Amino acid sequence: MQAAELDVVGIGNAIVDIIAHADDAFLDRHGMQKGAMTLVDEARAESLYDAMGPAVQLSGGSAANTIAGLASLGARAGYIGKVRQDALGRIFRHDITSAGVDFPTPSAQDGPATARCFIFVTPDAQRTMNTFLGASVNLSPADVDEDLVRSAKIIYLEGYLYDPPHAQQAFHRAATIAHGAGRKVALSLSDRFCVERYRAQFRELASLHVDYLFANESELTALYETDFETALSRVVEAVDLAAVTRGAAGSVIATKSSITNIHAVPVDRVIDTTGAGDLFAAGFLFGLARDRAHVECGRLASLAAAEIISHYGGRPETPLKDYVAARA
Amino acid sequence: MQAAELDVVGIGNAIVDIIAHADDAFLDRHGMQKGAMTLVDEARAESLYDAMGPAVQLSGGSAANTIAGLASLGARAGYIGKVRQDALGRIFRHDITSAGVDFPTPSAQDGPATARCFIFVTPDAQRTMNTFLGASVNLSPADVDEDLVRSAKIIYLEGYLYDPPHAQQAFHRAATIAHGAGRKVALSLSDRFCVERYRAQFRELASLHVDYLFANESELTALYETDFETALSRVVEAVDLAAVTRGAAGSVIATKSSITNIHAVPVDRVIDTTGAGDLFAAGFLFGLARDRAHVECGRLASLAAAEIISHYGGRPETPLKDYVAARA
Repeated sequence: MQAAELDVVGIGNAIVDIIAHADDAFLDRHGMQKGAMTLVDEARAESLYDAMGPAVQLSGGSAANTIAGLASLGARAGYIGKVRQDALGRIFRHDITSAGVDFPTPSAQDGPATARCFIFVTPDAQRTMNTFLGASVNLSPADVDEDLVRSAKIIYLEGYLYDPPHAQQAFHRAATIAHGAGRKVALSLSDRFCVERYRAQFRELASLHVDYLFANESELTALYETDFETALSRVVEAVDLAAVTRGAAGSVIATKSSITNIHAVPVDRVIDTTGAGDLFAAGFLFGLARDRAHVECGRLASLAAAEIISHYGGRPETPLKDYVAARA
Repeated sequence: MQAAELDVVGIGNAIVDIIAHADDAFLDRHGMQKGAMTLVDEARAESLYDAMGPAVQLSGGSAANTIAGLASLGARAGYIGKVRQDALGRIFRHDITSAGVDFPTPSAQDGPATARCFIFVTPDAQRTMNTFLGASVNLSPADVDEDLVRSAKIIYLEGYLYDPPHAQQAFHRAATIAHGAGRKVALSLSDRFCVERYRAQFRELASLHVDYLFANESELTALYETDFETALSRVVEAVDLAAVTRGAAGSVIATKSSITNIHAVPVDRVIDTTGAGDLFAAGFLFGLARDRAHVECGRLASLAAAEIISHYGGRPETPLKDYVAARA
């Protein structure tokens, strides 16, 4: 087995976030499920944008946020995802490559526009997401750069990838290449409703292809349709390690032989929870890739999540390497 | 004289900001004048973007920030500025109209792309701006909607408007319409280097057409090429009122008969000074349009500026009406 050149390669839906405030009445009026990620078509995307208040645009995408977070921590990272060659695609590519991430996936020259996610942040700092998948639906197995996947210690896949039509195959191809090269495969369950859409597939995937699983409590209990304790005991039958977040209550790291509770890192004021899970995964994966103890992985994860929830958007505002060093 | 329907109408370069961190060495390496607004051509814009780190996109433009701030304070406001019909133009139009601002200027169907400003924020929270004027160069006198200008108590013009070729005429047309309708004309000096480019014109403008002048200390002393005290005495010979900001030292309101010092509103942490002057003007103009005492205008100005420097970008994150009410 060749030495890995990269720490982590992520595969996901390449999305630009459009973030604005809204109150709960707005969510109700527009029939939104608070806290969830809902897929929308272009017409709905347009009408939501028309209804939305003044917004901020920045790169997003769950696995892309994680990979940008890893780069910000000092990791060597790569990303696979599909944008179109358009203004938002340019923004996405700029942000991830200027973070130092290897992003070899070519932009689509035609077809749907670059994916965007309309995120409404309520006064409780909760985010409600409406995703127009756009060019992401054209991610295909051919986009899974074999050399890139083989070059990373860990390949990280977002559950949201089950939504676009060909991405499941891309997902499986990546996992097969990674394991064939002796690498590890990590999966994020992404969203409770995503788990409900693909429960059977995610359970099979966890058993057959996943070494490290990331989820929040609600996603994990949705996966096994049971209570938290039972779900924890089930998940470690399937995977080597599960890192499960519980918001302000911290997180739980479960393996076949241990359960470890990690405290959340308190922040002065939670502004926007967009990217909290993504950045938790970034910190944890950084620790795993650098062979740190699980407790230290959890501490890095909590710190990265703390940085991201103290401002808008799912990409770090402060270099995470500095943020972590200042809190060592 | 008909009763005014709007409080303020602003005219300016319609710009989308692209904001990223940089250190002082980056500014030096790229030959930037720290704290200034420098005009760049498209090739330079592209190379700066390539060199820039991960960024955040949000609507900007000096007068547009002021007008968005006024709307956020609860004012009825309008804006005149030129974007192209493209992705950034859509963002600009969305943000200002969804803030409740009347924005009748049609988008250009061809010609240069929507203007963008590459803003580098250094660790001292100072911002250094590089503006590609793009579609703003096509703002013309015909874009000055006579009914809109006549409908506002105050017309607010940014000094930056002297950079694009036809905007000076638009500027003069607006001032003439406003005064013809018995309205007031306000001018922001915008930037020290902008003052140096158009010193003679700005002095003439101030004497002949301007009722209220907004500037920072450095712009005002550049206008009269003298010390601060002398410049203050000169400016009130030309205009009815000058509101001059001095950063953390607060601001000075000068009229022919009085000088009033206003304290800055302290913030926990200054993140990014982008828009500080623009939002100071927003608060002050709100007070003027609502016939408040100058001291109260200054207090509103300081509060609006305090909100804007506590986060990235020049558009309010918190509704200013609420921000002000919470600090009454």
